[in-house]
Amino acid sequence: MDLDDNHALLYRSLADRLARSVASGAYRSGDRLPSVRALAGRERVSVATAVAAYRDLEDRRLIEARPRSGYFVAPRRLLPPEPDGAGRPRRAPTLVGVSRHVMEIMQAARDPGVFSLAAACPWAGHMFPASKVSQAIASRLRRDPGLATSYRMTSGYEPLRRAVARRAFLHGCSLSPEEIVVTNGCMEALTLALRATTRPGQTVAIESPTYFSLLQILESLGLDVLELPTHPRTGVSVDALEIATRTPGAVSAVVLIPSFSNPLGSLMPDAARRRLVELMAERRIPVIEDDVYGDIHFGERRPRPMKSWDRDGGVLLCSSFTKTVSPGLRVGWIAPGRWRDEVAMLKFTTSVTTSELNQAAVAELIETSGFERHLRRLRATFRDQVERTASAVARWFPADCRVTRPAGGFVLWVELPPGVDSLDLFRRGLANGVSIAPGVLFSASGSFDHHIRISCGDRFTDDTEKALQTLGSLVAAPARQRADAGDVTGG
Amino acid sequence: MDLDDNHALLYRSLADRLARSVASGAYRSGDRLPSVRALAGRERVSVATAVAAYRDLEDRRLIEARPRSGYFVAPRRLLPPEPDGAGRPRRAPTLVGVSRHVMEIMQAARDPGVFSLAAACPWAGHMFPASKVSQAIASRLRRDPGLATSYRMTSGYEPLRRAVARRAFLHGCSLSPEEIVVTNGCMEALTLALRATTRPGQTVAIESPTYFSLLQILESLGLDVLELPTHPRTGVSVDALEIATRTPGAVSAVVLIPSFSNPLGSLMPDAARRRLVELMAERRIPVIEDDVYGDIHFGERRPRPMKSWDRDGGVLLCSSFTKTVSPGLRVGWIAPGRWRDEVAMLKFTTSVTTSELNQAAVAELIETSGFERHLRRLRATFRDQVERTASAVARWFPADCRVTRPAGGFVLWVELPPGVDSLDLFRRGLANGVSIAPGVLFSASGSFDHHIRISCGDRFTDDTEKALQTLGSLVAAPARQRADAGDVTGG
Repeated sequence: MDLDDNHALLYRSLADRLARSVASGAYRSGDRLPSVRALAGRERVSVATAVAAYRDLEDRRLIEARPRSGYFVAPRRLLPPEPDGAGRPRRAPTLVGVSRHVMEIMQAARDPGVFSLAAACPWAGHMFPASKVSQAIASRLRRDPGLATSYRMTSGYEPLRRAVARRAFLHGCSLSPEEIVVTNGCMEALTLALRATTRPGQTVAIESPTYFSLLQILESLGLDVLELPTHPRTGVSVDALEIATRTPGAVSAVVLIPSFSNPLGSLMPDAARRRLVELMAERRIPVIEDDVYGDIHFGERRPRPMKSWDRDGGVLLCSSFTKTVSPGLRVGWIAPGRWRDEVAMLKFTTSVTTSELNQAAVAELIETSGFERHLRRLRATFRDQVERTASAVARWFPADCRVTRPAGGFVLWVELPPGVDSLDLFRRGLANGVSIAPGVLFSASGSFDHHIRISCGDRFTDDTEKALQTLGSLVAAPARQRADAGDVTGG
Repeated sequence: MDLDDNHALLYRSLADRLARSVASGAYRSGDRLPSVRALAGRERVSVATAVAAYRDLEDRRLIEARPRSGYFVAPRRLLPPEPDGAGRPRRAPTLVGVSRHVMEIMQAARDPGVFSLAAACPWAGHMFPASKVSQAIASRLRRDPGLATSYRMTSGYEPLRRAVARRAFLHGCSLSPEEIVVTNGCMEALTLALRATTRPGQTVAIESPTYFSLLQILESLGLDVLELPTHPRTGVSVDALEIATRTPGAVSAVVLIPSFSNPLGSLMPDAARRRLVELMAERRIPVIEDDVYGDIHFGERRPRPMKSWDRDGGVLLCSSFTKTVSPGLRVGWIAPGRWRDEVAMLKFTTSVTTSELNQAAVAELIETSGFERHLRRLRATFRDQVERTASAVARWFPADCRVTRPAGGFVLWVELPPGVDSLDLFRRGLANGVSIAPGVLFSASGSFDHHIRISCGDRFTDDTEKALQTLGSLVAAPARQRADAGDVTGG
């Protein structure tokens, strides 16, 4: 046996012992592990061996290194139970910390060999056809070549802002073009809204579950979150928000997706919207409304944004054309109410302005009569895909799974039997060529460990059916597989 | 006399008295004024009169209202003396607070009736011709219509990142395409760099003077600034930075424009660059390098970015094609060194990705042989415009003015005689149809009150000559005019 073999043996046995002490609960989620030097001294091994052992545990996702702080037990092991949804918000605000997980998981799911049910991104084929978008761009450029290079330090291309204001009016919102700031998609709109209304260290109330990119934004801005219970059909509990905001200063802003929340697809009733807006106005708490799915309603009526009940500029309405025209053009917008000047300034200092050519192309496309036709087709397509996917889940998943009935959008939220760890399912899915979004990504507190989100943004084909069949069989037999594998990380 | 007249008389006389006590130094810059109620009580006037008096003083820019805090004496009245440039940094970090001024002033300068020497924006006619850019877009779209709608959650369009890496290599930087994150212009690159390396409340060292948009970014992120003295030819004082960073934690990051700083046009020598990079590496302080003007050198050699001396990933190199290809496409980039993952995640959470079509158009344009030709022409054009503008300043401005000799870029920095208030000059310029950028915008501490920045980005025409003549005459005769007007705000 040479030295290398010896080193490998040593670090692996050390890693296994550490893994067992984590599994046993000796080290709990979030605990700091001994420093490399302390570990080496204690175990009488070289520093290199101690480092290798920690690296091995990192690879197994059991522990994580934090820059300049050392090694810590990874948070996913010992998750708190799922919220009971009894209308009572969490006692204490939770610090967001899912970003690293998200990036790892979404990266893994991008593997071209994997059938993706993970990303909540509409399939390009459903959008305005690339040829039409490209024609619109080409025709705008022919009429005005300067659009490609023009650069006005304004809050948005005037014809687009007028078009947005006209559409908003149809949905019950009186917006003037001047109060609209054009952004690089809805994510920038939300980021600007949060930067304008909050300061790092403050607490923002959100729906639970909510989509992970919102949690990433909150984390990147140093904001704490208070997770509000939700109903899968009617969305956030206004009662819970009422209780949570009784103490002045406890909550500095609320971010909600009242229309077809991601991942629940829930639709907040008008009465609840109105009550929420009035309550928050009374308590002077800004409401950030993410309306990016509003146009993708399965019912007849397009929901009225909460902004339509706003009387004092307390609602910051955020939306974009990334889910209905083209995600690639990156054109979104915000009507920031009484934070208009702050948001305009933050937009200027963050990215100056949004590409005018792309704004002009969107303005052109949404003003055509073809756009309403396109939206009708898009809604029918997504509804069909959501229904087919839900049926396939019913066919292939164990009978004790639950699945949402979305009122719009294009995602399904599936509750698996309590024994099924969705992160584990995610990994086994990847190994079998299918990716889903594990539920733990949708909460800052690690809840929803036996939930998954399935995207129905893509066409439903035989491959989709097969992928869901594979997934169903993996859900059905998790415990045995893990027992057989006998590895700590799967436990 | 009716009630309204009485009210007007009362509030004006109250306002005048307050103005005098500010002028006399009784209230100093930054002091809080009595609350409206206290003032009304003290002066035995109605609350409405007290409010009207404060509003009047606000209009005169003598005081400013801060939300939820009350009224304060505006900072521009009693400015500290200009830094003596003796290599000694300011004693205490200064809180940034120029944003509101900037937005107001730049808005005023956008008036179409005003000849603008204010915005440091290259004239579209100097850029890649709109027709060429528009052709590049159209041809890319014909070959790949999907570009208009494509949406990859990556850190940038691969061919563009490769092109950027190849160009950087020519300037002495070994960058891999993977470490480059494409951004919406250089402003987003700087914002992401600061968000990745600092936390609100920390202090960032910057050049003084520096361009106001950087100050706006710092303010919007809640960062304090430490202004470092500079030399108009050689840029920032490395000695001053050395002293300022002796105490660990005193400075959390440094942001510099070593190549043709805005507004000085200075060029840091290679030896100083190297020393600065090594010193900051030793002290583990990130260096954010704004290289947006690097390609616009008047000398033969393109300066080597500081990044080329970076050995441990401590330099975050930010640049863009907004000054050389087209400001309107909004395509910039960052090579964030060891903050690669943080910056990529922040980019994702801030705006997901930059329009792929625009990235593809830029990639196409900068890879053509025409691009180098274009850059040569651009440099010659800007040099010519800078020289003509400097000559016109020499012709029309009083003999005791000073003017920079920029080594690149397209702005001039003019030091006026000490008695001339540049904000006042800005206002008188506007009234006479010419706008400049007043010097106070270029510092967080209100220094440079008798300096102005003149943009030479536009073609030099007879109108430019006339505008500079007008400006020169306004500089020559400020004291008399103000004495004649006899108003407090001009004093």
